[in-house]
Amino acid sequence: MTGSYTMLIADLIGVAVFAASGAGAAVAKRLDLFGVGFVGFVAALGGGILRDLVIGAVPPLAFSDWRYAVTAVCASVAVFYLHPQLSRLRRTVLVLDAAGLGLFTVSGTIKALDAGVPAVGACLVGMLTGIGGGLARDLLTGEIPAVLQRDIYAVVALGGAAAVTVLTWLDLAGPLPMASAAAAMIGVRLLALYRRWSAPVAVP
Amino acid sequence: MTGSYTMLIADLIGVAVFAASGAGAAVAKRLDLFGVGFVGFVAALGGGILRDLVIGAVPPLAFSDWRYAVTAVCASVAVFYLHPQLSRLRRTVLVLDAAGLGLFTVSGTIKALDAGVPAVGACLVGMLTGIGGGLARDLLTGEIPAVLQRDIYAVVALGGAAAVTVLTWLDLAGPLPMASAAAAMIGVRLLALYRRWSAPVAVP
Amino acid sequence: MTGSYTMLIADLIGVAVFAASGAGAAVAKRLDLFGVGFVGFVAALGGGILRDLVIGAVPPLAFSDWRYAVTAVCASVAVFYLHPQLSRLRRTVLVLDAAGLGLFTVSGTIKALDAGVPAVGACLVGMLTGIGGGLARDLLTGEIPAVLQRDIYAVVALGGAAAVTVLTWLDLAGPLPMASAAAAMIGVRLLALYRRWSAPVAVP
Repeated sequence: MTGSYTMLIADLIGVAVFAASGAGAAVAKRLDLFGVGFVGFVAALGGGILRDLVIGAVPPLAFSDWRYAVTAVCASVAVFYLHPQLSRLRRTVLVLDAAGLGLFTVSGTIKALDAGVPAVGACLVGMLTGIGGGLARDLLTGEIPAVLQRDIYAVVALGGAAAVTVLTWLDLAGPLPMASAAAAMIGVRLLALYRRWSAPVAVP
Repeated sequence: MTGSYTMLIADLIGVAVFAASGAGAAVAKRLDLFGVGFVGFVAALGGGILRDLVIGAVPPLAFSDWRYAVTAVCASVAVFYLHPQLSRLRRTVLVLDAAGLGLFTVSGTIKALDAGVPAVGACLVGMLTGIGGGLARDLLTGEIPAVLQRDIYAVVALGGAAAVTVLTWLDLAGPLPMASAAAAMIGVRLLALYRRWSAPVAVP
Repeated sequence: MTGSYTMLIADLIGVAVFAASGAGAAVAKRLDLFGVGFVGFVAALGGGILRDLVIGAVPPLAFSDWRYAVTAVCASVAVFYLHPQLSRLRRTVLVLDAAGLGLFTVSGTIKALDAGVPAVGACLVGMLTGIGGGLARDLLTGEIPAVLQRDIYAVVALGGAAAVTVLTWLDLAGPLPMASAAAAMIGVRLLALYRRWSAPVAVP
């Protein structure tokens, strides 16, 4: 997923979008410039760092390729200074966030399978790559993670990771099927947003 | 501790009980079905994941053996749907939780010693295996970890880990001494619950 | 940084000071004796554990060298029993905390560079070594990390890590330049405290 130039660009777009979501949450909590950059960095790269630690790829990509950290920090600083104008872009950010979720989950699952993690574990690692940054963002800003409370978000990641695993098992792990899996995840996520789908909560 | 079939069953019982404790906390916080499953997974397997990362056993068992994740998720889903009936089982859950603490601490200490971690470090890793999942459960649900606030719980884990280390040093690391260490921990933990023993708090 | 005896002493002073800061926060939150020791341990050694996991040095130093854990726990227990007298020492603690920040950041950056982490990543790892323990301390005690909210603290760590990286690149990685980098960080940190410098917060 990182071999080709196209995939690097896709990855860095995901990093920028997730960094912006983290930075936005940090600005809302009145953190200072450093805090905004740090939460942005963790939101963008926390999922990938966890993935790399779990599959034994040390140092994690976030520390071994400077383009990831620089992209995350630049996006965060931009949100720090431009956030009043950005509130108008809420819809764009949600679409880009869905794209980041799809891309990160697919690349995380592929990397876990390549590292020899068995099917069930690879699905979990792929899902954690997609949702880990958002989880860490919410913990750092003192919130119960949104992904655990409402919305069809993590389930999309889990379904996408399962699809990637099945495609790999069927020997269909080419660029086109993987891009289709990411596109399907993005579509389901946007549909869930538009239709306000939510996962069930236990009866009291 | 994982070589034999009996020990796998013991390990999975610990996973199921810790998952149930995490799922119960998540239901009380009104998390959705996914959140309940996720907090259950982390409560059951977070301690073991931390242990495996620290001793360099990657990918961690939680990702390399599907039975662990499936057990955790099934127990969590069961709590999600059955929790009104389960509140009557509170006493049973506390006993099973004590069993999980004993089994996880003993197996975590043994694995750390086998991986070449020195005595003091192995005690800490064993203790973290026993209490790590509960810590992560409380952080995810927005609470200061209960294990840091009251009760004789982590101290039982630390004492048990020290006992396992001393037994290993005396060349007494057979199944019977280890089972006795786990049994002693469970006994002390239940006695602490029954007598309401608490660790001291600093004078203001 | 750990080869020589002098450096070990410097490292353990940093551990004791950071443990005291964690233990003080835990006492203020009314945690019990175990909780105070645990938060002290994490505040003192959490940054180093994260560093060692990221650079693949397992088991982390906190588990492989017993002097680190014992120093952290002894300092925490001392704070638990002596904290009413210690409040008079607030100024001393802030100076020692600045010293810990400088020493941990310098040694973390050097270890990351030695492990083959590229320049930008090594700066991040060095900074995380310096601030990671304080971050974990605040998360465990239910606070949004102070380092993200106010004060010139993490920026000092980042600047120091960058200085160490540049010095190494210039082939000036001897004991004297490294000690100077740590001293400069401590000076800037104390000046920031004295002058009440703060990083900017976004306009609402």
